[in-house]
Amino acid sequence: MPPMNHAPVNSIFDTEFTERLCEMFERQICFNQVLGLQIESLAADAASACLQMRPELIGHFTHQRLHGGVISATLDAMGGLAVMAAIGARHLDESAEARLQRFGKLGTIDLRIDYLRPGNGPAFRATAQVLRLGSRVASTRMEFFDAQDRLISCGAGAYIVS
Amino acid sequence: MPPMNHAPVNSIFDTEFTERLCEMFERQICFNQVLGLQIESLAADAASACLQMRPELIGHFTHQRLHGGVISATLDAMGGLAVMAAIGARHLDESAEARLQRFGKLGTIDLRIDYLRPGNGPAFRATAQVLRLGSRVASTRMEFFDAQDRLISCGAGAYIVS
Amino acid sequence: MPPMNHAPVNSIFDTEFTERLCEMFERQICFNQVLGLQIESLAADAASACLQMRPELIGHFTHQRLHGGVISATLDAMGGLAVMAAIGARHLDESAEARLQRFGKLGTIDLRIDYLRPGNGPAFRATAQVLRLGSRVASTRMEFFDAQDRLISCGAGAYIVS
Amino acid sequence: MPPMNHAPVNSIFDTEFTERLCEMFERQICFNQVLGLQIESLAADAASACLQMRPELIGHFTHQRLHGGVISATLDAMGGLAVMAAIGARHLDESAEARLQRFGKLGTIDLRIDYLRPGNGPAFRATAQVLRLGSRVASTRMEFFDAQDRLISCGAGAYIVS
Repeated sequence: MPPMNHAPVNSIFDTEFTERLCEMFERQICFNQVLGLQIESLAADAASACLQMRPELIGHFTHQRLHGGVISATLDAMGGLAVMAAIGARHLDESAEARLQRFGKLGTIDLRIDYLRPGNGPAFRATAQVLRLGSRVASTRMEFFDAQDRLISCGAGAYIVS
Repeated sequence: MPPMNHAPVNSIFDTEFTERLCEMFERQICFNQVLGLQIESLAADAASACLQMRPELIGHFTHQRLHGGVISATLDAMGGLAVMAAIGARHLDESAEARLQRFGKLGTIDLRIDYLRPGNGPAFRATAQVLRLGSRVASTRMEFFDAQDRLISCGAGAYIVS
Repeated sequence: MPPMNHAPVNSIFDTEFTERLCEMFERQICFNQVLGLQIESLAADAASACLQMRPELIGHFTHQRLHGGVISATLDAMGGLAVMAAIGARHLDESAEARLQRFGKLGTIDLRIDYLRPGNGPAFRATAQVLRLGSRVASTRMEFFDAQDRLISCGAGAYIVS
Repeated sequence: MPPMNHAPVNSIFDTEFTERLCEMFERQICFNQVLGLQIESLAADAASACLQMRPELIGHFTHQRLHGGVISATLDAMGGLAVMAAIGARHLDESAEARLQRFGKLGTIDLRIDYLRPGNGPAFRATAQVLRLGSRVASTRMEFFDAQDRLISCGAGAYIVS
């Protein structure tokens, strides 16, 4: 079995928290599996993930472009993931279990997506940054890149935290 | 084979246009098939579609809720569909083929989604209305309802038209 | 002194609440005075106001159009006003003073404005509707009309409530 | 008369273009004068401006905070200014007059503003960056800072270019 590459050595998070968050994000949130999201990094106020192009993710069939909905769904999920990381980082003294329980109340309030360029190519990377984590609401900024690191799309989200 | 229910008798559109638009939207745009979108109605400035809940569309696994990304992707697709209908209605004198060719240039500029209530239940309906169709940009408003006709989410989109 | 026209006879709100809310919205929120906002109606989940065109509100000097920022500022203010009305309506059993105290915590989380048509003419009307008032967050939809009742702009906002 | 400080020595733009753009932005767009916007810098894909706190720009009268509408109006204006700079930079071979003529068609399609922190203090700075300048549509990202350089608000805009 290949080693997990989900807990970077320099992560601020413990392995249990990281692995369980990855398990939840990549597998238990079913639609994230449809998107094929794989977490690449987690920080105190940011997260990144990658996804591979697959035929069912295509929008414009003649152009082999990623469907805009794949991008908006990914950026929504990434904003939420960055907020989870920020909540986890704020409560490092708590057990992994207690921190994961906190995510039950998390929900997207609203989302904006700007589509800048068509999404072509074999793989994509999405990042999210928490601009502000309040006691009730968190605000995030997200970006979506292609395999050449071109900015394909960006977004902003507001999330209810508790 | 069951009859197509895609060309309502009172539609302003001819059967060829309606059927080819449905074929494109429901099958050729691959990710719309993942979402399971089925067109219900097409008007000169509006469109509606339905989708069934399926396990892979779930977001919050403990709550059996629709993933927010399914909603944003659906509303993005619906805004685009309403714009296609509006373009089709503006060029009723053209052949179905010529009108469908016009959609090649269509693209989402940006999108806003407001999540109002959790999306539970067996089926959902999404509607979109064109607020303005300009020569270059179209603006739309979208709504997402559950099986009890509760407003789950709403959105706004801007689309490049030509 | 002309009679106050701020407490429509069929309003669900008492005169004291209505007058103090108008006083606050129209005069104590200084920038609303710059915009020239005057409340027209207040309901349990909606509000409307009007404003007059004035030279300093102009954006495109050659076209005598309303500045887009006047529209965005007005729609932000209107969404907030509708939320205030909704909070007031939810707590009708409280004194006007107690209800007004609740507005101290109100703040805009984020805002989207769609500009559909240029804003010309002598006067404008803006409306807002609360789509959902939760215990922490409220979501609103806003519209901006010219004197011929044409939809000039529309928007959506999320507000922190407590 | 004090020297114009509007044409930074290292600007890519000629003095005539810079001065006329400043004149238009700061004085001929009347509502920008109400806001008190003063251009600080112009680059090929970015712009910044400052504004001073004044009593009429206050929103929450008890807290002496900047009105959210001042922020949204400023960020809308700044996104537009950055697009003007980007158009100017793309057509450096044209006369200042010809480049300024191009701005007649510029208009905001839509706008999103995220309010992160209350706007207090004596002065503010706003920046905008063009993420993409297409032949029809430009997309921008904007930020609003207080005098301590804290991020108060951020936004995104789409603009029609021609």
